[in-house]
Amino acid sequence: MNSAASDPALIGLDWGTTSFRAALIGADGSVLETLHAPEGIMHVEGGCFEAAFERLLSPWACHRSLPVLASGMITSRNGWVETPYVSLPAGIEELANALVAHTTDTGRQIQFVTGLASEINGAPDVMRGEETQIVGAIASGAVAGCFVMPGTHSKWVEVDGGRIENFATYMTGDIFAALRDHTILKALMAEMSFQKDGFSLGVSSGLSAGCNLLHRLFHVRSLPLFNKIPAEMSADYLSGLLIGAEIAGGQTSMTGEGPVTIVGRSDLADRYEIALDIAGRESRRAENDIVARGHFVIARTAGLIT
Amino acid sequence: MNSAASDPALIGLDWGTTSFRAALIGADGSVLETLHAPEGIMHVEGGCFEAAFERLLSPWACHRSLPVLASGMITSRNGWVETPYVSLPAGIEELANALVAHTTDTGRQIQFVTGLASEINGAPDVMRGEETQIVGAIASGAVAGCFVMPGTHSKWVEVDGGRIENFATYMTGDIFAALRDHTILKALMAEMSFQKDGFSLGVSSGLSAGCNLLHRLFHVRSLPLFNKIPAEMSADYLSGLLIGAEIAGGQTSMTGEGPVTIVGRSDLADRYEIALDIAGRESRRAENDIVARGHFVIARTAGLIT
Repeated sequence: MNSAASDPALIGLDWGTTSFRAALIGADGSVLETLHAPEGIMHVEGGCFEAAFERLLSPWACHRSLPVLASGMITSRNGWVETPYVSLPAGIEELANALVAHTTDTGRQIQFVTGLASEINGAPDVMRGEETQIVGAIASGAVAGCFVMPGTHSKWVEVDGGRIENFATYMTGDIFAALRDHTILKALMAEMSFQKDGFSLGVSSGLSAGCNLLHRLFHVRSLPLFNKIPAEMSADYLSGLLIGAEIAGGQTSMTGEGPVTIVGRSDLADRYEIALDIAGRESRRAENDIVARGHFVIARTAGLIT
Repeated sequence: MNSAASDPALIGLDWGTTSFRAALIGADGSVLETLHAPEGIMHVEGGCFEAAFERLLSPWACHRSLPVLASGMITSRNGWVETPYVSLPAGIEELANALVAHTTDTGRQIQFVTGLASEINGAPDVMRGEETQIVGAIASGAVAGCFVMPGTHSKWVEVDGGRIENFATYMTGDIFAALRDHTILKALMAEMSFQKDGFSLGVSSGLSAGCNLLHRLFHVRSLPLFNKIPAEMSADYLSGLLIGAEIAGGQTSMTGEGPVTIVGRSDLADRYEIALDIAGRESRRAENDIVARGHFVIARTAGLIT
């Protein structure tokens, strides 16, 4: 029997801090099936990753002979197999050459993708998992440009010549949650539908906050106190202020021009689209399935699939 | 009997969110006795401020006939008597003219000092209590200059011609605690003695963070991860980073030059002294008892004491 384009050829794992995602990938790179479980590495009891791996992939027991590629925080110190960081610039070749092989007790071999490290003026930065998404986007044709990957720790990534040249982490989401829930601002926060006007006002303030962010944040309290904005806008004003400040920083630290590609399909990605528009920066959305695409091109370059 | 310089003439209350401080003030403005209790306005059960007032001042029952001046968050919406804000510029005269009188059920009269409000580009800022400290410093001779009042919500205050011309709140302390205890940075934080080297590195980064504070904060995690600083320095690095960013903002938003006067005698004030030195800005310490001095000069200007 000849191998068809849609025959399963690879299992790609995107195993992060809070979730496990697996894709069954065809010989042509298409995603044939997916699995999703809320078992991020922090939820794997006792660090028994092999047991979790076998259990979570049991629906695909018939595909046990396929190569497996894994990326994300599963390769960190708190994960299954800690892999070293690859330095910049890095693209598909560099990641394929740096795969770390691990054989399970049952004899299955898993290839772990390494993360990336950068250093600017002595200050290090790191990513684990995002590099696989970005090389997936590169393989889909985005050989140059700036990416933003919204999240608890947003990443800004600059690609040129098909390789990641530069990136920076912004603690925006993590800080938003801490400020909303654990400062004086908490008293104002209400569960509401998205308040676009409040968000947009916050973005404008954040974009022009310059070195005064610690002061501008106090406006989240003082504006409702003086009825300049309704209290129910406070949470989205805070969100906009932080995202605006992130965009001001990201635009300064990334040299590239042109549209920013937003990775993700979440409500958060929608907020970045609005904020980039206010900043006067064009944006577009990354394609779906760039993680699986990344796993596929790294595996193919490494000779794991033909 | 003639009144001596040291005869009690006034009771001054500095009643804030977390503490109650009272001073028995002589006819010459000297502080004769003090009382201190951890009963800030948020700890007064059921908002029974009059009962707390009578109980906390019971050691001075023999001075019931003296005028009482109160300042601080006791004049806020969550306090005893909400007073309006006075707008800028404001000095001793303006505060003396804006006192709000309140008669207790037992017939004692209390004069509440109002807070100050400012507005820059449509964004309001407020203070309650700090204005009394600053006019106390003005009465002691600081008729012009820049003040920093470190705390949960630091205040930068600019004085000219004996009046407060400008001020801005920085959420530094509140944000420090939220980031230390409620973000990914928590994992690194250890209870340690003050690590001046780590603090100083943080200050330097904060001073030059510009619009990139949300990124620089990630270095609190990445520097120890790459053994660039010992993990036990992380908390003080974070403290320095935020205080440095505050100073960069404060120096930008306040137009005055010359030394910055640091209000307070706490460990936090010591940190600001170190950080201002790194920023190349001269600093000095405010005198003790400027709150009582403020109460005294406001009361005298209002004709409550002669």
